[in-house]
Amino acid sequence: MINGELTIRRPLRWGMVGGGRTGQVGYKHRTGALRDGTYQLLAGAFDINAERGRDFGVSLGLVPERCYETYRDLIRAETERPDGVEIVSVATPNFTHYEITKALLDAGIHVICEKPLFFTSAECQEIEKLAEKKGLIVGVTYGFTGHPMVRQMANMVKKGELGEIRLVDMQYTHGFNAGDDVNASDAVKWRTNPLTAGPTFVLGDIGTHVYYLSEIVLPQLRIERLLCDRKAFIQSRSPLEDHATVLMHYHGGARGRIWVSSVNAGNMGSQRYRFIGSKASFEWSDSHPDQLIYEIQGEPTQILHHGMPYLEHESLAIDRMGALHTEGLGDSWANIYLWIAEAVDAKLRGDNEFLRGHHYPGIKAGAAGVRWLENCVRSADAGAAWVDFH
Amino acid sequence: MINGELTIRRPLRWGMVGGGRTGQVGYKHRTGALRDGTYQLLAGAFDINAERGRDFGVSLGLVPERCYETYRDLIRAETERPDGVEIVSVATPNFTHYEITKALLDAGIHVICEKPLFFTSAECQEIEKLAEKKGLIVGVTYGFTGHPMVRQMANMVKKGELGEIRLVDMQYTHGFNAGDDVNASDAVKWRTNPLTAGPTFVLGDIGTHVYYLSEIVLPQLRIERLLCDRKAFIQSRSPLEDHATVLMHYHGGARGRIWVSSVNAGNMGSQRYRFIGSKASFEWSDSHPDQLIYEIQGEPTQILHHGMPYLEHESLAIDRMGALHTEGLGDSWANIYLWIAEAVDAKLRGDNEFLRGHHYPGIKAGAAGVRWLENCVRSADAGAAWVDFH
Amino acid sequence: MINGELTIRRPLRWGMVGGGRTGQVGYKHRTGALRDGTYQLLAGAFDINAERGRDFGVSLGLVPERCYETYRDLIRAETERPDGVEIVSVATPNFTHYEITKALLDAGIHVICEKPLFFTSAECQEIEKLAEKKGLIVGVTYGFTGHPMVRQMANMVKKGELGEIRLVDMQYTHGFNAGDDVNASDAVKWRTNPLTAGPTFVLGDIGTHVYYLSEIVLPQLRIERLLCDRKAFIQSRSPLEDHATVLMHYHGGARGRIWVSSVNAGNMGSQRYRFIGSKASFEWSDSHPDQLIYEIQGEPTQILHHGMPYLEHESLAIDRMGALHTEGLGDSWANIYLWIAEAVDAKLRGDNEFLRGHHYPGIKAGAAGVRWLENCVRSADAGAAWVDFH
Amino acid sequence: MINGELTIRRPLRWGMVGGGRTGQVGYKHRTGALRDGTYQLLAGAFDINAERGRDFGVSLGLVPERCYETYRDLIRAETERPDGVEIVSVATPNFTHYEITKALLDAGIHVICEKPLFFTSAECQEIEKLAEKKGLIVGVTYGFTGHPMVRQMANMVKKGELGEIRLVDMQYTHGFNAGDDVNASDAVKWRTNPLTAGPTFVLGDIGTHVYYLSEIVLPQLRIERLLCDRKAFIQSRSPLEDHATVLMHYHGGARGRIWVSSVNAGNMGSQRYRFIGSKASFEWSDSHPDQLIYEIQGEPTQILHHGMPYLEHESLAIDRMGALHTEGLGDSWANIYLWIAEAVDAKLRGDNEFLRGHHYPGIKAGAAGVRWLENCVRSADAGAAWVDFH
Repeated sequence: MINGELTIRRPLRWGMVGGGRTGQVGYKHRTGALRDGTYQLLAGAFDINAERGRDFGVSLGLVPERCYETYRDLIRAETERPDGVEIVSVATPNFTHYEITKALLDAGIHVICEKPLFFTSAECQEIEKLAEKKGLIVGVTYGFTGHPMVRQMANMVKKGELGEIRLVDMQYTHGFNAGDDVNASDAVKWRTNPLTAGPTFVLGDIGTHVYYLSEIVLPQLRIERLLCDRKAFIQSRSPLEDHATVLMHYHGGARGRIWVSSVNAGNMGSQRYRFIGSKASFEWSDSHPDQLIYEIQGEPTQILHHGMPYLEHESLAIDRMGALHTEGLGDSWANIYLWIAEAVDAKLRGDNEFLRGHHYPGIKAGAAGVRWLENCVRSADAGAAWVDFH
Repeated sequence: MINGELTIRRPLRWGMVGGGRTGQVGYKHRTGALRDGTYQLLAGAFDINAERGRDFGVSLGLVPERCYETYRDLIRAETERPDGVEIVSVATPNFTHYEITKALLDAGIHVICEKPLFFTSAECQEIEKLAEKKGLIVGVTYGFTGHPMVRQMANMVKKGELGEIRLVDMQYTHGFNAGDDVNASDAVKWRTNPLTAGPTFVLGDIGTHVYYLSEIVLPQLRIERLLCDRKAFIQSRSPLEDHATVLMHYHGGARGRIWVSSVNAGNMGSQRYRFIGSKASFEWSDSHPDQLIYEIQGEPTQILHHGMPYLEHESLAIDRMGALHTEGLGDSWANIYLWIAEAVDAKLRGDNEFLRGHHYPGIKAGAAGVRWLENCVRSADAGAAWVDFH
Repeated sequence: MINGELTIRRPLRWGMVGGGRTGQVGYKHRTGALRDGTYQLLAGAFDINAERGRDFGVSLGLVPERCYETYRDLIRAETERPDGVEIVSVATPNFTHYEITKALLDAGIHVICEKPLFFTSAECQEIEKLAEKKGLIVGVTYGFTGHPMVRQMANMVKKGELGEIRLVDMQYTHGFNAGDDVNASDAVKWRTNPLTAGPTFVLGDIGTHVYYLSEIVLPQLRIERLLCDRKAFIQSRSPLEDHATVLMHYHGGARGRIWVSSVNAGNMGSQRYRFIGSKASFEWSDSHPDQLIYEIQGEPTQILHHGMPYLEHESLAIDRMGALHTEGLGDSWANIYLWIAEAVDAKLRGDNEFLRGHHYPGIKAGAAGVRWLENCVRSADAGAAWVDFH
Repeated sequence: MINGELTIRRPLRWGMVGGGRTGQVGYKHRTGALRDGTYQLLAGAFDINAERGRDFGVSLGLVPERCYETYRDLIRAETERPDGVEIVSVATPNFTHYEITKALLDAGIHVICEKPLFFTSAECQEIEKLAEKKGLIVGVTYGFTGHPMVRQMANMVKKGELGEIRLVDMQYTHGFNAGDDVNASDAVKWRTNPLTAGPTFVLGDIGTHVYYLSEIVLPQLRIERLLCDRKAFIQSRSPLEDHATVLMHYHGGARGRIWVSSVNAGNMGSQRYRFIGSKASFEWSDSHPDQLIYEIQGEPTQILHHGMPYLEHESLAIDRMGALHTEGLGDSWANIYLWIAEAVDAKLRGDNEFLRGHHYPGIKAGAAGVRWLENCVRSADAGAAWVDFH
C-alpha cells in the first residue's frame, strides 16, 4: 500500500506546457504529480495567453520568472539553469504534441505527454529513436490504468483465471457533445478540427484510453484485422467523428469491439469493459472503479473490492485509500505519474535492469495508440471496410 | 391497470404442440395464457414421446383423450369436435414451425408460434397469405415486449422525447453455452444443429427478441445496410454461431448494433438496450425491467418506475402488479397472450377496425425477424461484409 | 421447477370476499391463484357496492347468480350447492377479517385471509381453535415469502452458512402517504382509521410482512423484549402511525430492527433485509428479488441468482421462470396460493403427515403477526419503552 | 472548480504526530494536505518506535533532524526554529489527543486532530477556551464531509427542496471486526480498550463521522432525547461496543437513527444516509459518493452527478475531477485540509470576518461529537433508556 514514502532518490524538478486555467486536464496532471512529493512544480508555459499563464503559475506557487510565454522560452531558460526542470508535462492541443516533445527531448528533458500522442506512426518512431538516443523517458497519460483494479484484472488474466480470451466488449461514451459546437468552449473546438486535433476526434480523445487499457489487461491479444465505422452526427465535426464503432479480429480467433461516442445523450457511465474468457468474465467501469465484477460461468457472481487482502499483491501494492474507502481518478493518475517518475529515476541512475521489468505507459504505448488510430481511419475511409492491421 | 376482467367475449379454447415436461418454454406459454381465464387449455400434443406427453397433459388437468401423439392427430380430432380448440401454440424446435403452422391454418385454427418463426422469408410470405385467406391470426411469442416499460419507451419515442434517434446499442447475451455441448440436453442440442435450428443459433434464438423490441420502440427506423460478424467459439456448432455482432445503418443516418452471444461466461444480465436521441437516451434491461433509465443531456439522470402515475397511459393500462411490486417475465408474456387473444376475438367477430389499431406481435413481426436473419447470414457468409438490406 | 403440473388431486372451488374493481389487492389474489389451474374462481362478494360487485364478477367470467351482495349471502347460497366453493379468500378492510373468517369456518369453508389477520390475539386463538375443530385451513397472504430466494435464505441459514445470527436490519418503507389524506381514496382512508384498520396503520399494513419474512428465514430467533417508537407525521392519522421503528432483543443475544414507514418520500425501494451472522450476511430486497447478496467476511461479495443450479433444492423446486428470466411478485403469490391449496388438499384427504412437514403461512403465522403488533403498541403506548415480549 | 491555485497567501509549515508506517490513517492526512502545495511537511514525530519513525520521516523526504522521538521533542525544537512548523496534525490513539493538542496550543501551534476528539466535553471546553485565547485553530478530520455532494445536500436542504425534515436514517457499518481480536494488529487493539480508545469503540470511531455529516446537512435539527443500545458481540471488547443503534428525537418532531457496527460481516457498503423530508428525500453513500439520489414523491427518481452544471455553486466550486471522473476519499480529505488551511491563514492575517462565514470542521464540531458520545453512553449505561440530550 502506498503511504507516501518516496520510491525514488529525490523529487524530480518538473515543469508544464499547457494545462492552464481554462484547460480541462491541467489539474489532473498536478494532482497526480504532487501529492507525494515525487515531483516539484518549478516552471511552466501554461497558457497561449502569456499574461494569464504567468498569473496562473504564480497562483500555483511558482516564482514569476519561471512562468514562461512559450515552451521555447521555457526550454531555453530552464536548460541554462543549474536547477532547471528535468521533466516536463505536455497538456496542449494534439497538433503541438510532436513539436514540443521533440524540442524537449532535444534539450535533454524527459517528457510526459497527453494522448493521442502524435498524428502519425512515423512521428512516433522518430521520437522513440530520439528518446532512446538521448536516454530520456517519454510517458503518456493514460490516466485510468493506474487503478488497482486494472492491475488486478491484468494479473488474474495472466494467471489464466478467465480461461482463453474469446470476446472483448468495450466502450467509452458520454453525451457532452450531443449538441452542436456553436457556443462551445475553445477546449471543445480544437478537438473537432482536424488541424488541431489530428485525424480523429473521439477515437483519439477517448478511444485511445480504451485501447490502451485492453492492451494492459490482455497483452496477449494482437489485432489481425479491424473495421471502423465512424460518423459525425454534428455535421460541423466532419470529417472527424463524434461516434465510432471498431470491430477487431485478433490473431487466434478472439473478437473485440470498441465503441466511442460523445453524443451518447445523458450518459454519465463513461467507460465500460467486459473481458470474456472460456471460463469466466470481468466487468469493470470507471464510474465505480473500486469494484471488479468477476463472473465464473455457473457460479454466483463475485464482486471484488479494492484494497481487500484476497486481491493480487500488485493490486494491493498500489492501493492508496485502503478497503472501504473510495479511490478516485486522481489516485489513478498519481500511480501513473509515480511509475513514470520511477522510470526517469532509473534512467538517471542508469538502472536498465529495473527499466526492463518496469511497467508504465511509455512511448511504445503512445505509439500503439497512434497506430491503432491510423488503422481505424484507413478502414473508415474505405467505407467501414475490414482492413488488415499493420 | 389489468385486474383480471375479461376483455374478450369468452375464453378461447386453446391447445399446445410441444412445450412438454422437458421443454424450456412450455410453462412460459401456460403461465402467460392461463392467469386471467382468457384461454382454456383443452388439448395438446406436448411431447415427441407420446406416452410422456399424455401423462404430462393429464397432469396439467386435461382429459386423456385430448392428449395426442402428434400435432396431426390433434388437428384431426379437434377439428371434428364441436368444442375443438380454436387456437394452438407451437413450442417445438424451429424446423417444425412452418409445417405445423401451415397444417393448423389449413385446418382453420389460429396459431401462436415460437420465434424464430420459420427458416425463410418465402415461407413467411406463404403463411401470411394463407392466414389472410383463412381469416386467421398468427401470433409470435416475443415475450419481453409485453412489459409496461417497453410500451413506455415506445410512447415517449413517438412523442419525440429523445429527439431524433441517432444510436441504438443492444445486446442479448448469456454464458450458458460457454462450454461444449457434449453433455448438453436435447433442448440445447437441437438449437445448434442447422437441420433443426435453421440457418442460425443465437441470432435466431435470442437476437430476434432484440430486433423485434427495437422495432416496437423505434418503428421509424428502417435498416439500409448491415454487417454481421458471426462465429462459433465451440467448433461443433459451426456453421451456426454462438456469438454475433450486427452493425446496422438505418435510412436517415442512425446507427445500430446488436450483440448476441451464449458464450458470455457468467453473464446473468441478459438483455440491455440503449436508445440514444439528439436530446436524451433510454437504457433498459430485462434483468431489472421495472426501471427505465431516462437521461436527458445536461440534466440529472431519471429513473422511471413501472406503475407510477407519471407514466404514459398505455404503460399504466397494461400494468398488473402496481407500483412498488415487481412485474416478472410471466406478466409480460401474459400481456402478449392477451393481445393475441384480443386479435383472435376481433377476427372471430369480424372487427377489422379494431384490428387495424391493435398492437400485437403477429405474422409481420415474425416475418421481419426472419428477413433480418437472412440478411445477417448473407453478410456473414460474405465474410462479415456490408450488405444492402432487402 | 414449477411447470404447471397439478400437485393436488383436482382444482379447488374458490370464491372471494372483497378484492373488487377498486381494491388494491384483489388482482394479486387472482393472479396468484389462477395461473396453474389449482383454483377455479366460481363465486364472489366482491364489493360493498353490490351492483358494481356483480358487474365485476361477471367481467371475471363468473355466472351472475354466484356474484353475491354480501359474504353472508355467499355462504348461505354456496353451502347449499353441491358444487359450492370450498375455499374463500378474504380481501376486505381489516376490521371485517375476524367476522368473515369465523362465518366461513362455521360454514365449513377453508379461508385465505389478508394481513394483518385480526385485531387481537384472543381472536386469533379463538379462530385457531375453530379451524382445528372444523378441520379447516386458514392461510394468510404474506405474498413476498413465496419467492425462491426467500427459501434460499431460509435453507442456507438452517445449514449454518451465516454462522450464529447477530443482527437483523429490516425495513419496508415507501412514500405514498407522504402527503395528507384529504383527497385520498377509500382504499387509503380505511387504513388510517382505527375503527377499520385496527390498532396500527403501517405496522400492520406492511410491518407484518417484514416480521413474517424474518420468522421464515430465522425461525430460531425469539424476541425477548422490544421497543416500538411510532409516530403519525400526518396528524389526522393519529393515534395510528405512518412511521415506526421497532428494536428487538432476541433470546440468546441477537438484536434486530424493523423500520416501517409510508412517508419515506420518493422511496421506491420498498423492502430491504440484512441478516448478519458471525461468518456472513445476506442482503435481499423485494425490488430486485431475483438476486441474493451473500457476503462472507473477508471474501468477495457474492450475488446468487434465482434459478441457478448452485441454489438449494427447495429454491429451485419453486422457481417458475428459470434463470435469466425475472420472477415477479405474482409468481411469489402463486407459490403461496399453491402451498395453501396443497394444505387444503391434504386436509381433504386426511393426510396429517403431509401437513406436519408442509410449509405455508397459516393461522399460526397470522397470529404471530398480531401478537407482535400487540407488543409494539404496548411499547409505543408506554412512551417507546422496552417491554418484555409476551 | 479547484485547479490547484493557492487560496492562501503561502504554504503552511506543517508537522505530524503519529501517522507512521503502521498506522491506518497517516496517508489520508498526507494525501489530503500535500496535493496542492497548501501545506509543506517539514517535521514529525511519526511513531512510538523512534527509530522507525525517523526512518519513515526521511522516506517522506524530511530532513532527519526534524524527525523527532516524541511530540514533546517536536514542540520544543520546532518552536525554537524561525522556520518551525505552525500547524501539526495529530493522528495518534484517542487517549493522547487531549494532551498533545493542549501542548501544541500552549506552544502556539495550530492543530488538526483525529476524531473522536477527546474523552470528555470538559476537555473540549477547556481546549476551546485555550485555542480562543491563543488565537489558534483546531481542525477535526471528519474526512468524508469534504465531498462536493455533501455540500450539494446541505445547500439543497437549506433551500427547502426536501420540505420539512421528518426522518433521518443513517449507518456506518463494516465487518472487519466480525472475528475476535486475538490476532488483531495494534491498530485494532487500542481501539477496543477503554484506556486507549475512551468510552466507546464504534460509536466514536465511525459513529462520529455519521453524526457530524448529519449536522452539516441538517444544521437545523437539534436532538431532544436519544436512546442508545450498544453491545459487544465479541466479549473481549466489553464494556466497549462493536454494535450500536441510536434513536434520536429531534426538537420539532423529526426522528433519527444511527446504526454503527464493525461486525456487519462482509459488508463493504460502509456509510449510507437517507434524509427524508415532507416533499422529497436524499440518499447518499460513501461507496458511490459521486452520485446523489434525489427522490421527489410522485416523480421519477433523480440521480445527481458530481461536477454537473445543474448543481449548486458551492458543490461545483470544490469539485476537483470534473463530471464523469470519480472523486475519491482523498479528494474529500483534500477539501477538509484546504478549509482548515484557509481558516489558519485568516487567523494569521486577523481576518475575523472571513472566519465568521467560513465552513470547516473545527473545535465546535469535534466537541459536538464528544457530547453526542457522552449522551449515547449515558443512555446505554441506563439500559438503553431514553435520556434527555444535554
